[in-house]
Amino acid sequence: MQTPAPLTVTGETRLYVVIGDPIAQVRSTHLYNGLASEGGYDAVFVPLQFGAEDFEAATGALRSFKNLAGIIPTIPHKARMLDLVDEARPRARMVGAVNSIRVEPDGRWTGEAFDGVGYVEGLKANGHDPKGRTVQLVGAGGAGASMAFALAEAGIAQLRLFDVDAGKADRVAAGLAEHFPQLPVTVGPVDPGAVDIVANATPLGMGANDPLPLDPETLVPGQLVTDMIMKPPVTPLLEAAAARGCPTVVGYEALKGQAAANMAFFGYG
Amino acid sequence: MQTPAPLTVTGETRLYVVIGDPIAQVRSTHLYNGLASEGGYDAVFVPLQFGAEDFEAATGALRSFKNLAGIIPTIPHKARMLDLVDEARPRARMVGAVNSIRVEPDGRWTGEAFDGVGYVEGLKANGHDPKGRTVQLVGAGGAGASMAFALAEAGIAQLRLFDVDAGKADRVAAGLAEHFPQLPVTVGPVDPGAVDIVANATPLGMGANDPLPLDPETLVPGQLVTDMIMKPPVTPLLEAAAARGCPTVVGYEALKGQAAANMAFFGYG
Repeated sequence: MQTPAPLTVTGETRLYVVIGDPIAQVRSTHLYNGLASEGGYDAVFVPLQFGAEDFEAATGALRSFKNLAGIIPTIPHKARMLDLVDEARPRARMVGAVNSIRVEPDGRWTGEAFDGVGYVEGLKANGHDPKGRTVQLVGAGGAGASMAFALAEAGIAQLRLFDVDAGKADRVAAGLAEHFPQLPVTVGPVDPGAVDIVANATPLGMGANDPLPLDPETLVPGQLVTDMIMKPPVTPLLEAAAARGCPTVVGYEALKGQAAANMAFFGYG
Repeated sequence: MQTPAPLTVTGETRLYVVIGDPIAQVRSTHLYNGLASEGGYDAVFVPLQFGAEDFEAATGALRSFKNLAGIIPTIPHKARMLDLVDEARPRARMVGAVNSIRVEPDGRWTGEAFDGVGYVEGLKANGHDPKGRTVQLVGAGGAGASMAFALAEAGIAQLRLFDVDAGKADRVAAGLAEHFPQLPVTVGPVDPGAVDIVANATPLGMGANDPLPLDPETLVPGQLVTDMIMKPPVTPLLEAAAARGCPTVVGYEALKGQAAANMAFFGYG
């Protein structure tokens, strides 16, 4: 990889905003600006923080920003953005959330969901194609749902789903049954012993005193263990997995995969 | 000057927007980002285009952007911003426009006007302190008014004012009379022969087929001639002035002076 040219921002530069609240934890802007610099694209990605209580006024204003080329919604705006876009791609509708919006030349907003896709791309980039594999997914919130659909699209052989909120796991399972009727999906307690890939999609591990999302004693040496958490880069779960002889893939790999897919969606590369 | 570090934008980066419509001509973002990089400040400046018809909704949304640290209004928003800020500094009230807004820690907006100040700083940086000098100012619109007040603050000895719209020149003269009662101000036809500094504050020279803002035959060799126009960098007026043996200062110098003053106002350096 060549050193990217410094970011040059003028009035002609296309503007992309990463929206969320809180926002301080966002690092993707740096990744996207690096990809733009490397590719020689005149685009800049900046964080934009507004609360759920200001969602309508803020997104209304975003519509009036004539040089806005795209929006990357993060928590808490991903689900509401689904209703706001002019067109939601099928994957976004399946997931029930949008984490990328492209502003079309005619001003219409097209929404897509890439976080699960990014996760799968991150696995592949690290030599772990999930096709034909069995997966234990822990957590069926926004990230988990998105990963479940992307794994199904990628051709996994079987999925085990767990969430402390059983209703969430059931809803994702129902969505999968509708779109991927041939995929065997089980909702139930975490059981890493039976699968090739164990994926954490809960926030457990972000806090210093969080319990682990699963008992590391149940991990099988050689089995792939992944985490979506980016801070810390190596979570206690991944540390424990590595200690048991499991290969691991960190959350940043999913972000990289998502950024690459997103840049292509935005028309770069 | 050292090569600035590449701009790194994360969720913690303070966001500044240059607002205007049109926006493609804006180059100041590049200048500001360079100053931020050089100084090691975690700040990013981006263009934001919205029309006068969307002013209220857009500025309302700007109020809800929690990571917004400042606004640099350009045409057509400078005058309306004066009414919108929570506090307008005396210079902004004199000029009747705001071209810099600092978001205070408590969320209040403080407005200031720096374009005239930037012009004077640009003169000084090029070895032409206007103190004690006599000045012919051509154009009494927003830029001209701002320059007139800044020149008065800088201690010029006398000012001649011209605008094709005599009412504009009269209003600026009245404002100067109120704030700088000792400064001799004359409103009337352009008469470069009698002054040390001739300053163009009209847009004449931006268009390829524009007439010159004044007859270059009337310029006196050795007299300083300046332009606020940035594109082209050297205007036909400055070319003609140089051909007559006049030193010149280009518009970009005013922008640099303004940026430096603005960065200090934003708390950098």
